[in-house]
Amino acid sequence: MKTISTSRSHGGIQGVYSHASSSCDCEMTFAVFVPPQAAERACPVLWYLSGLTCTHQNVMDKGEYRRLAAELGLIVVCPDTSPRGEGVPDEKDNWQFGSGAGFYLDATQEPYARNYRMYSYLTQELPALIGEHFPADMARQSIFGHSMGGHGALTIALKHPQRYKSCSAFAPIVQPSTAGWSKPALEKYLGADEATWRPYDATALIADGHRFDAFLVDQGTADGFLKEGLRPWLLEEACSKAGIALTLRMQEGYDHSYNFISSFMDDHLAWHAERLGK
Amino acid sequence: MKTISTSRSHGGIQGVYSHASSSCDCEMTFAVFVPPQAAERACPVLWYLSGLTCTHQNVMDKGEYRRLAAELGLIVVCPDTSPRGEGVPDEKDNWQFGSGAGFYLDATQEPYARNYRMYSYLTQELPALIGEHFPADMARQSIFGHSMGGHGALTIALKHPQRYKSCSAFAPIVQPSTAGWSKPALEKYLGADEATWRPYDATALIADGHRFDAFLVDQGTADGFLKEGLRPWLLEEACSKAGIALTLRMQEGYDHSYNFISSFMDDHLAWHAERLGK
Repeated sequence: MKTISTSRSHGGIQGVYSHASSSCDCEMTFAVFVPPQAAERACPVLWYLSGLTCTHQNVMDKGEYRRLAAELGLIVVCPDTSPRGEGVPDEKDNWQFGSGAGFYLDATQEPYARNYRMYSYLTQELPALIGEHFPADMARQSIFGHSMGGHGALTIALKHPQRYKSCSAFAPIVQPSTAGWSKPALEKYLGADEATWRPYDATALIADGHRFDAFLVDQGTADGFLKEGLRPWLLEEACSKAGIALTLRMQEGYDHSYNFISSFMDDHLAWHAERLGK
Repeated sequence: MKTISTSRSHGGIQGVYSHASSSCDCEMTFAVFVPPQAAERACPVLWYLSGLTCTHQNVMDKGEYRRLAAELGLIVVCPDTSPRGEGVPDEKDNWQFGSGAGFYLDATQEPYARNYRMYSYLTQELPALIGEHFPADMARQSIFGHSMGGHGALTIALKHPQRYKSCSAFAPIVQPSTAGWSKPALEKYLGADEATWRPYDATALIADGHRFDAFLVDQGTADGFLKEGLRPWLLEEACSKAGIALTLRMQEGYDHSYNFISSFMDDHLAWHAERLGK
């Protein structure tokens, strides 16, 4: 693991690191905030998954998570959203596929299957690296994210209900298999057989019997992607049928940007901290 | 005035605007955060001046000021750091002069005197525009800034002790007339006669009899510019001799970045809100 930068922030350390990922067969960059409490004890780990076009850096710059994470004693890990670099297949003019659009799945189709394995990367390789190099209590993990990263958080939590103590999302893509900006990506990564998409679709996972205790979801009413791409009512229906406690908050006048995310970041951090325990 | 963007944030509105500036003879862009209280009453105005290379956007993205400004009912105005655009003279490869390096002065030397008039812009033209277009109580203004913007805040406050209710700075350039990164700029903007530099040098202004009630200054000890460019002890000496109440806090391990600024942003907002009154 290489340290790219570290900077003191709110009493903790905001770092950026990279490593040669075997899952993604390329160099991967990620950000970790370590709170001041880590000097004395291992701290719980909160994973933040970002949205389309983002790297580790967007939330690091604009997410406003460090003040309260430092107070609550949370390590916050912010991975990249896809493999990147020379030799990694991409569609340069398509922001909904390839670089910045890994959709937190393991691709099975060529030429993507070699690199686009964000699901394995985030559930196996990177947790092992975090556990090895940071003062992290890996028995206490939670996960959240924005938009495509909200999709990632929901689907990963539904498949690992024991590992993650809590899950929340900002404006998540709740049914990527039917949304215009994600369906073509699932087809290219996973092939035409839609049955293979179901493990990467929160509503399908719930329909197929996966469960999680509770979700917190915030969604802005002025979000331009609300009606076509996000459609939180589909998650509401699925959770209602399955008996999953969903707290869905429609936030009046908020858009899809980090101004929305940062406005409710504190609520999400508190939600996770409460469930991660002291 | 043109509205470039508005976005709901922490209950208020973060906007970006532009206008044809007569002071700078070019289109100028600035950011304004309007807190929710402005729906009911005019709110005090806090000016934030940014550092070298920045635009209005850096602090808007990374400054983490909106949460508490919304709570305290502060309008926060974040101007650009220089004139810009076609026809504005610049030294493209020099980050310490020209675009992004206006040093909050009125240039007198050609070819800069026509555009580089940030002092007039910030003390006359932009306040008039803010007073006209925003729910601002212009009888209650305060000012702060970072690095070159800290220099701007200190010098502008010292020349207008009645207008600004309070002044603070993050890692300010306190004596630009002798620092390596600013002395060449002062010479190019103002000419070789160093007497003309004194109105744009906080320590010289204090030596020349200008006064301000109190300053809050935070300075990171791991700031790479501390010993050569910033030298807060020069401000400490000047304030001590002049009887100005300086609260200088050396912040252990903090660098020159927005991680430092955002870590102490709340303290500065509270400092200003207390002095701006309810």
